[in-house]
Amino acid sequence: MTLFVVLERPTHPGNIGSVARAMKTTGFSNLILYQPEHYPHQQASQMATHGIGILDNASVIDDLDMFLLGMDLVVACSKRPRNIQIDHYSPDTAAYMVQSSLQNDANVALLFGNETSGLANSTLNYANIMLEIPMADSADSLNLSHAVQIVLYELFKLANQKINLPPQQEMPLASEKLAFEEHLHTTIKQAGLIKHSSTFSKIRSMLRRMRPDRRELQLLFGILNAALPHPNPNKKDV
Amino acid sequence: MTLFVVLERPTHPGNIGSVARAMKTTGFSNLILYQPEHYPHQQASQMATHGIGILDNASVIDDLDMFLLGMDLVVACSKRPRNIQIDHYSPDTAAYMVQSSLQNDANVALLFGNETSGLANSTLNYANIMLEIPMADSADSLNLSHAVQIVLYELFKLANQKINLPPQQEMPLASEKLAFEEHLHTTIKQAGLIKHSSTFSKIRSMLRRMRPDRRELQLLFGILNAALPHPNPNKKDV
Repeated sequence: MTLFVVLERPTHPGNIGSVARAMKTTGFSNLILYQPEHYPHQQASQMATHGIGILDNASVIDDLDMFLLGMDLVVACSKRPRNIQIDHYSPDTAAYMVQSSLQNDANVALLFGNETSGLANSTLNYANIMLEIPMADSADSLNLSHAVQIVLYELFKLANQKINLPPQQEMPLASEKLAFEEHLHTTIKQAGLIKHSSTFSKIRSMLRRMRPDRRELQLLFGILNAALPHPNPNKKDV
Repeated sequence: MTLFVVLERPTHPGNIGSVARAMKTTGFSNLILYQPEHYPHQQASQMATHGIGILDNASVIDDLDMFLLGMDLVVACSKRPRNIQIDHYSPDTAAYMVQSSLQNDANVALLFGNETSGLANSTLNYANIMLEIPMADSADSLNLSHAVQIVLYELFKLANQKINLPPQQEMPLASEKLAFEEHLHTTIKQAGLIKHSSTFSKIRSMLRRMRPDRRELQLLFGILNAALPHPNPNKKDV
């Protein structure tokens, strides 16, 4: 239903403004700023031009994990090869997946990282898919706002073709996925299966990439409950 | 054979730098600046990042007409509706035409206008086709460097698909087209058919949009010579 453009720790205020303008040209309006170095800022307003309304209405958040947990589809836009297994899609292919999710009333986050360091690995654990913009071999990286422009342009193009996308499998709500992840977390923790603090992040990352539909999620619930003792709510641990 | 990114009277040096970076990401390197307000400029260098080599090697020109006369295909990138009849193409469709021309050893110019006023009407007379980037109804305009990024991204995407484009009709060289235009100009001028100074610009604009292939150009030569008396070289007038 709603597309969010999420900038993780953007450094340059001019880029934030340029992103707002890029959003305006493609008809998207929900800009989320996670710990921006400068906001509001005169340079951002200058670069936003007619996207000033989007810039002024941007939401600044301080808990990115919480925000991403409320999303049905998280698309990490990044070029760097990472040591996690996750599907990489081109902007036009990813646009199909995003558009199809939006048509199925999903909340979708397009995540863009810091200009220098890119997306944090901890953020990537929430990604369902990765989007990579093709580039010349000799090139280093795209300007942040240019990357946003390309991704939104592909989405806008697809939305305007007014094609009928194939119906999606019925997907679980973000709250249902979260409920399963929390149930899983508590269960395996109580069963003594979590040895390191990072273990559950890794499990979450796998689950996110797997993207089970609603029936598959029910199946996972069933298997989990059959395999491990039900957690004791009095021992619930976060 | 060669693609030129041509900026007409760019105002903001930061935009010139951002264009150089966009070119770097897509593997294009020939940047032409027609009467830039500031060049070289520190802000341009800053925004160019790894495209600094392209920026430093940009050619500054003072005669855009002469430059465009040497081009085989001139693509005017503009959103404004103009009162000249010319085909408008989307970036992906235009990319096919550009790519096909490049594969046929053509020199292609992608023309981008000033940030505020766009392309001059006199420049549009040299355009073979117009490229229009689709935008949301509520939007005003794209940032200059973002527009360049989108167009080059579509070209890069197409080039990387390594598809075989259908062979083009054999197109006349830029010099052959120019020879015809000059012959036509001289002939109709001596025949007393040019009443206003802008008349030939209009005729040139029509010819450019028509894009005759080599055989068609021969046909036009034949018709012209049959219809009007051969010009007297001693009376040649520019």
